[in-house]
Amino acid sequence: MQKFEIQILGCGSALPTRKHLPSCQVVNLRDKLLLLDCGEGAQLQWRFTGLNWQNIHHILLTHAHGDHVFGLPGFLSTMGLLGRQNPLFIHGPSSLQTFVEYMKAHFFPDLSYELHFIPVDTTVHQQIFEDRSMEIWSLPLQHRLPCCGYLIKEKPGQAHIRREMIDFYEVPTWAINRIKAGEGWTTQTGEYIPHERLTTPADPVRSYAYCTDTQPVPELAEWCKGIDLMYHEATYAETEKDRAETYAHSTALQAAKTAKAAGVKRLVIGHFSSRYEDEQVLLEEAQTVFQNTILASERLILTP
Amino acid sequence: MQKFEIQILGCGSALPTRKHLPSCQVVNLRDKLLLLDCGEGAQLQWRFTGLNWQNIHHILLTHAHGDHVFGLPGFLSTMGLLGRQNPLFIHGPSSLQTFVEYMKAHFFPDLSYELHFIPVDTTVHQQIFEDRSMEIWSLPLQHRLPCCGYLIKEKPGQAHIRREMIDFYEVPTWAINRIKAGEGWTTQTGEYIPHERLTTPADPVRSYAYCTDTQPVPELAEWCKGIDLMYHEATYAETEKDRAETYAHSTALQAAKTAKAAGVKRLVIGHFSSRYEDEQVLLEEAQTVFQNTILASERLILTP
Repeated sequence: MQKFEIQILGCGSALPTRKHLPSCQVVNLRDKLLLLDCGEGAQLQWRFTGLNWQNIHHILLTHAHGDHVFGLPGFLSTMGLLGRQNPLFIHGPSSLQTFVEYMKAHFFPDLSYELHFIPVDTTVHQQIFEDRSMEIWSLPLQHRLPCCGYLIKEKPGQAHIRREMIDFYEVPTWAINRIKAGEGWTTQTGEYIPHERLTTPADPVRSYAYCTDTQPVPELAEWCKGIDLMYHEATYAETEKDRAETYAHSTALQAAKTAKAAGVKRLVIGHFSSRYEDEQVLLEEAQTVFQNTILASERLILTP
Repeated sequence: MQKFEIQILGCGSALPTRKHLPSCQVVNLRDKLLLLDCGEGAQLQWRFTGLNWQNIHHILLTHAHGDHVFGLPGFLSTMGLLGRQNPLFIHGPSSLQTFVEYMKAHFFPDLSYELHFIPVDTTVHQQIFEDRSMEIWSLPLQHRLPCCGYLIKEKPGQAHIRREMIDFYEVPTWAINRIKAGEGWTTQTGEYIPHERLTTPADPVRSYAYCTDTQPVPELAEWCKGIDLMYHEATYAETEKDRAETYAHSTALQAAKTAKAAGVKRLVIGHFSSRYEDEQVLLEEAQTVFQNTILASERLILTP
């Protein structure tokens, strides 16, 4: 299996607590790193991940609330101080472009790397990036201002060579990559050996959705159908359902219903209101409709 | 003694480490709170102080580098979310005014409290604030952009009543405050008792200077003459003296020489470069010329 890990750097909401930092996650897909949101303290938490700043290729921002972006200026600035060379792509609602440009102009005009802002249309579910190993899709969310989540899908890898078959049919080394990529092999005696006999299938592709901040969005059931892991905000318990609606957030029960409707394999809930000393109440509420739920926590590492 | 405490929330420099946060301190003078700088993570550290956000009256900013101000947006925003009512005064170089205004307009336009920015002329040593309990003075520093430190001087309190003398001369309760404030007392038999006989002197006034970021400033010897406690940046050791000069910072030795020239009672050094795993080298260097030096550290509480 190739690497596909999500590490949670912060899963609190707007008010800081002694326990939680504001929103930030890092996705490690085959050693390419994506940052999801960048709440205050992200660069401080980063120091504990052991990951290389240079390998962050994209930062995906959900919306222009401080608890999701106030760590960004320090993060960008520090990468510059460390001499980062690789260009960096920031994706997010267009309103955040001026913020990034303002901070750059006033605080770190001479960055050592190229910084590109790519506006995301938060009203459309579409692919916003792809390369050989992944696709990233936007997930329109419903919050108090333009907001979108992100779906990260691994692309299929190559088939695995069956060593004993390669030896048996005396396949030369130069042909291995073509076989991995899908071809069969014709032996010296003219016998055709199909690809499937020479290989075992590629690993199944995995997928992860990051859905915060939002009230329940029915379309997520379709867009995230059958994915492996969904992070969905669960700011409140059902007892605060009215408040959740007022502030366009979700309850733990609503998050679980979304996960169930989408048929995801696993749900992780986060963006906890500071009112919950212990989030067990949120977990138990979610598990009443979706058993395979876990609580987010700082430095937790998950695999889809 | 009335309360006069300095709590260090962050004493690192621009690059974050696992050990230090960027610059921030809180001064508690008779339960009025001043924030000195506001590096990223300040609001997160605040949660551990047990202090009340409402009691912060002034934020004093030294200069427009990210490691001194990137915590400000979150700090201001959170106080609003918590329903702060007291007006807040931010003092600092004028370039920071647009930063505060930009962030307010884009991220927290509807603050629950009045926010006033008061530009500080960083080229002049002058009193920028006073009330019944303190004076605040600017300390022009020399950095790569306009920068100033701050000198906080306690004002004299009232004399202490000698209970046994009050009883002996049968001084009525209504006269006590006048005696505390400096008057004497004439007894029923016409005998005049001088103030000094009825009281013991007020506590000595104390003072604290916050000097960061800067190369050595000779005038500090005059401006901070004989003060109780000086925080002076010591980003580097003498082995990095050239680098200190290039970036307009100080070495530990230079900080100590400034403290000695000023004849301060105690020196605390901070703003440590991330290159020092252990700041003992900085402490020992400083102590070669100024013995009464200590190292800053997060959550350290000092009294002048």
